[in-house]
Amino acid sequence: MKKHNFSAGPCILPQEALQQASQAILNFNNDNLSLIEISHRSQPFIDVMDKARSLVKELLEIPEGYSILFLQGGASLEFLMAPLNLMQNEGKAAYTNTGAWAKKAITEANNIGEVIVVGDSSDKNYNYIPKGYQIPNDVDYFHCTSNNTIYGTQMKEFPSCPTLMVCDMSSDIFSRKINVNNFDLIYAGAQKNMGPAGTTLVILKDEILGKTERKIPTMLDYKTHIKKDSMFNTPPVFPIYVSMLNLQWLKDLGGIETIEKINQEKAKILYAEIDRNPLFTGTANKEDRSNMNICFLLKDASKEELFNQLCDDAGINGIKGHRSVGGYRASIYNAMPIDSVKVLIDIMKKIK
Amino acid sequence: MKKHNFSAGPCILPQEALQQASQAILNFNNDNLSLIEISHRSQPFIDVMDKARSLVKELLEIPEGYSILFLQGGASLEFLMAPLNLMQNEGKAAYTNTGAWAKKAITEANNIGEVIVVGDSSDKNYNYIPKGYQIPNDVDYFHCTSNNTIYGTQMKEFPSCPTLMVCDMSSDIFSRKINVNNFDLIYAGAQKNMGPAGTTLVILKDEILGKTERKIPTMLDYKTHIKKDSMFNTPPVFPIYVSMLNLQWLKDLGGIETIEKINQEKAKILYAEIDRNPLFTGTANKEDRSNMNICFLLKDASKEELFNQLCDDAGINGIKGHRSVGGYRASIYNAMPIDSVKVLIDIMKKIK
Repeated sequence: MKKHNFSAGPCILPQEALQQASQAILNFNNDNLSLIEISHRSQPFIDVMDKARSLVKELLEIPEGYSILFLQGGASLEFLMAPLNLMQNEGKAAYTNTGAWAKKAITEANNIGEVIVVGDSSDKNYNYIPKGYQIPNDVDYFHCTSNNTIYGTQMKEFPSCPTLMVCDMSSDIFSRKINVNNFDLIYAGAQKNMGPAGTTLVILKDEILGKTERKIPTMLDYKTHIKKDSMFNTPPVFPIYVSMLNLQWLKDLGGIETIEKINQEKAKILYAEIDRNPLFTGTANKEDRSNMNICFLLKDASKEELFNQLCDDAGINGIKGHRSVGGYRASIYNAMPIDSVKVLIDIMKKIK
Repeated sequence: MKKHNFSAGPCILPQEALQQASQAILNFNNDNLSLIEISHRSQPFIDVMDKARSLVKELLEIPEGYSILFLQGGASLEFLMAPLNLMQNEGKAAYTNTGAWAKKAITEANNIGEVIVVGDSSDKNYNYIPKGYQIPNDVDYFHCTSNNTIYGTQMKEFPSCPTLMVCDMSSDIFSRKINVNNFDLIYAGAQKNMGPAGTTLVILKDEILGKTERKIPTMLDYKTHIKKDSMFNTPPVFPIYVSMLNLQWLKDLGGIETIEKINQEKAKILYAEIDRNPLFTGTANKEDRSNMNICFLLKDASKEELFNQLCDDAGINGIKGHRSVGGYRASIYNAMPIDSVKVLIDIMKKIK
């Protein structure tokens, strides 16, 4: 039975990418060797790395003066690397607290320097995006999370920023147009719109580095990885390869402009059903609703069993909400076809 | 044409593991979902992680009181994590300097505390393993590298150690019997005898942690990952899965005892040819020769072209030596069949 994979991450990837990845495990590049048993210093893998980088550059229209890195450790390690690389000794940074991941980023930065929380939606279980806050001039950088996977909220606009702009885009990168010029450091764990778990994309403006006197450990220093084109040590070969395939799929589809329209349409029809159907209610503030993670509650608990059963019967996977919100979460990342969203909507219409 | 993959890492993996991995990319666990698109919190992946851990425990006969972790960042990040977790404030540690990776480990530890180099083979381009050194009583730990991939040397015995014993076993773990009781912390990048690039195995005695007053960043604190069974953040799903397949292959083959005999035999016949054949010479001190990475020179440079051509024609891959040693390096990890070693030996016999 065909599955409709609404998992929050790791999550759905295009079938074309999965087919090619499966083949490359057996025989990559027609060399009769597996992708995962060749040297990362061999030309076939250097070509993969180069292509992955150039696809990121092209899809996001990254200007000159930025480096593109494929690292390890997920956004969780970036929570540490960002302050280590950008905060002065006894420095400070401004953060928005918009969810569980933002909170972890704050905790980590707080151990390096001082964090000023300039916007905070924890008072309402993170169901909205704080706005209208002032970012102080005298901080080393400002940090925000563009999309909050657990709570289904998304920044529709980014504040004007008098300091370095740092953004965790783990769950909505490549899903919509962004102006990279407005950011100094962007990072994203791969396992949503970019690829499988195991690599982290980092995009950063080169000139922001080297301004702190802090001694940064080698592996946590962005300069280490820039100098060696993300090959200071053995890179996570397979996750980078599948990311490359996935980005090629996105390019072939028409790039960010095309996928953004598709993503908007998918989200629009699903939110429309949530708003129309008296059995359901969305959990996020309407104007801050995420186009990636759509969180909703079934108001009548007695109907949960039926709804879950119908979802199961239809092959719907990974729709259970995070325990801190409850209810349901439909993650509809780039690779999610609109037809799968319609399958879910049909079930929502069906239960009475 | 069948390839004989002598790459130093990433390197050869068993065909059975590659076949299963390829299939899991398309349809894992008969769920009609790819392994790389399911949640790492789903039972099928938790089962993978549990199985990988229990195979490590069984194969290495790891006693109670040790934790087994699958992390990211390779041995390079462990070079930092080991001193961060084990060194006291203003503490010191003893290291052996036996190669390029040992040297990097020393550099990193030196930024955290004081390093005392107790054994050093850099005077002879690391072609031997230092012995007879004394490990001071008053250091926080002793660190060594069991096998030096680039230089083809291997510790045949480990010194008696009056302090914590830390070992980087990246390139020979699972290749021979070790007594885990004699070690407090073992780490290994996966991409040799364990699996594909992208995960790091860490085995550590729980009681050694929590003894430093240093504030350790969350992601670099072993306790973080022990508490969450290596799932504090999204783990590198695919590299862990393939590691599990590879360890299952090793278990089915008969475990460490069996593979150690096979590895000894492979190394023995190749070194025998190097010693017999007047055209070749080994680069490592005989008593310290690695059973994993066999480094040798072709004495007559005019025959290089022919030798390279014969190797190419036979499907031999990845045999070029590291630039810091030159010549050739045949890496004959666990998955390398003895028949492939014989193909190489036949070529060595052939050239005159």
